[in-house]
Amino acid sequence: MIYLDNAATSWPKPESVYQTVDKIMRQTGANPGRSGHTMAVEASRIVQETRELVSELFVISHSSQVVFTLNVTDSLNLALKGLLQPGDHVITSSIEHNAMVRPLEALRKNGVEVSKVATSLINGVSPQDVKKEIKSNTKLIAMTHASNVTGTLNPIREIGKIAKEHGIIFLVDSAQTAGVFPINVEEMNIDLLAFPGHKSLLGCQGVGGLYINRRLVLKTLREGGTGSKSESLEQPDELPERYESGTLNTPGIGGLGAGIKYIIATGMEKIKKHDEMLTNTLLAGLNKIPGVILYGPPLGHQRASVVSFNIKGASSGEVCSILDRSFQIAVRPGLHCAPDAHQVLGTLRGGTVRISPSYFTTEEDIQTCLQAIAIIANEIC
Amino acid sequence: MIYLDNAATSWPKPESVYQTVDKIMRQTGANPGRSGHTMAVEASRIVQETRELVSELFVISHSSQVVFTLNVTDSLNLALKGLLQPGDHVITSSIEHNAMVRPLEALRKNGVEVSKVATSLINGVSPQDVKKEIKSNTKLIAMTHASNVTGTLNPIREIGKIAKEHGIIFLVDSAQTAGVFPINVEEMNIDLLAFPGHKSLLGCQGVGGLYINRRLVLKTLREGGTGSKSESLEQPDELPERYESGTLNTPGIGGLGAGIKYIIATGMEKIKKHDEMLTNTLLAGLNKIPGVILYGPPLGHQRASVVSFNIKGASSGEVCSILDRSFQIAVRPGLHCAPDAHQVLGTLRGGTVRISPSYFTTEEDIQTCLQAIAIIANEIC
Repeated sequence: MIYLDNAATSWPKPESVYQTVDKIMRQTGANPGRSGHTMAVEASRIVQETRELVSELFVISHSSQVVFTLNVTDSLNLALKGLLQPGDHVITSSIEHNAMVRPLEALRKNGVEVSKVATSLINGVSPQDVKKEIKSNTKLIAMTHASNVTGTLNPIREIGKIAKEHGIIFLVDSAQTAGVFPINVEEMNIDLLAFPGHKSLLGCQGVGGLYINRRLVLKTLREGGTGSKSESLEQPDELPERYESGTLNTPGIGGLGAGIKYIIATGMEKIKKHDEMLTNTLLAGLNKIPGVILYGPPLGHQRASVVSFNIKGASSGEVCSILDRSFQIAVRPGLHCAPDAHQVLGTLRGGTVRISPSYFTTEEDIQTCLQAIAIIANEIC
Repeated sequence: MIYLDNAATSWPKPESVYQTVDKIMRQTGANPGRSGHTMAVEASRIVQETRELVSELFVISHSSQVVFTLNVTDSLNLALKGLLQPGDHVITSSIEHNAMVRPLEALRKNGVEVSKVATSLINGVSPQDVKKEIKSNTKLIAMTHASNVTGTLNPIREIGKIAKEHGIIFLVDSAQTAGVFPINVEEMNIDLLAFPGHKSLLGCQGVGGLYINRRLVLKTLREGGTGSKSESLEQPDELPERYESGTLNTPGIGGLGAGIKYIIATGMEKIKKHDEMLTNTLLAGLNKIPGVILYGPPLGHQRASVVSFNIKGASSGEVCSILDRSFQIAVRPGLHCAPDAHQVLGTLRGGTVRISPSYFTTEEDIQTCLQAIAIIANEIC
């Protein structure tokens, strides 16, 4: 099977990730931060090591500013609901995933003002357009680094500058970029960075995280046991415990650590170049297939490693189904949980076929996929 | 090492749990419920299988009423915050874990009325005392099945009857009982059952769950992509997607399924008997050691497999530290994230030493532990 659904979850993982998860389950099954016995201390060390690796990757000065969650959706909910009060104004782009769109919609119904800035699926949101939306009650600018439908990049460095100039908090969803694109929270003026563990960071499902700038105190999404200040009925203020109630996913967090170690050892630049090579091969090949409609940034334009297309006369579901059944190629059809992006593309009705390679995808995989698409397009058109 | 901290996280797990998690990571890395390709369909099947196993265990009529979360704390937060509005009244016991206490405290500050019923650490809360607290605005009775400090059982069957008679919703925290004590949500009139995956259900950390009675519609704790109704900006109403935003922890959920299969194959009654034998051996042994103060239900009384004690003249931390360093025995000191229970015990200041065996603990382990405690007590007293 050729797996090209890495924008959902990356697969395979480095061998070290599988082995780390298994080793922790077998040897370090205790609760981190909950007792003083040797195994619990070792579990804490594992969690802390990953916290430091995340900090190294995103240039975070204090690892206590990194909190672990269930997934990036959980992280975004914590960031948005922890920060925004009725009467606050938030600016976002029009190519967001439902992980951003739906909590914002829930907040909007609760009195938060939401401005969605019209967004190009070639260049992303315009910094000037974002600037125009700023009002006296603008508390937050919240957007994805890259569209999960087309790979379109939002200019987060420029947006970060604007946010800083206006004293506005800046939240970035790095679901499609963390682990491939360099992210420096200090330099990019990012106050809240939500990341998934199981995509390009190469960890397993069940772990996400949020970087929280030290000057921010968020309301908690869940309270509970933290292993600290247990005598208090109230959630402690200290980071990271304040936002990490209940037992952490130690094997998952350890696996994420192994994923990040792999990225650091390989070099993010090398991973990015490989992704770019595959994406360019894909775009060049798709461009040549009659009946294929391509969406998003054109060949040669910077993008995350995500390509969306359709074949004239066929639904995205039909194409994916044939790719799966007749060619053992796994891609994803439909809306990819991002209706706003499809609204911009004009594909809200049928969605698109999405191909998302990873560092473990080979050029041969892409060529095989292109041949299969050519056969399908030829039969349909 | 002898691991006796199973009330925090059970360890070891059945071999099948390790192997299942590893196999899913290596072979079924895709997102469940998010695409139609073969691997995604298989991931969905794995999640659904565990949903059905949970349903079998707790006698839940429709598996869609089971939703997966990060941990039991996440489940309790969803249940409490999803249900309670300012002006509502909730009745709880006085031996709750902070996973219940702290969200309730947050809700109390937001206008929810909370009554904590005085609770015996021998017999648990009195059903009559609970009944006396019922008022016209009582929406929920929420309590743990068993104390995580002393193993004291709350009479949830009787409380369930009272809740039903008065049309009050009943939430049970099964953190210390799920997988050992029979729980039948229909017969016990439980409307919301929060459970952890990584304790007596023998799964790994990173998964919990909540059973939600079909007649209840909870506010969501987090919104996001659900793989369903993606075109809608609002969270879908359908179960289980409504409460499962973002990528699920497929390997963890599969591992939980393997844990439950092990429990079903072994027989819960056999597991319970083994736990009882160990707990009784422990209590009988501790009773004979001069200087040991035992807390909670006496020998012969029903309890979950958790024993708390202190040695006169020593702090709980000191005892645990000696057990760990000199005897390689892992137990937990302090408050165990349950200050209310320690308030009842009169141990709020120093906490207790907690021993919690599992099905994989042997009688020999317990005898070794008793000998070690006797040596420590002899040196200290």
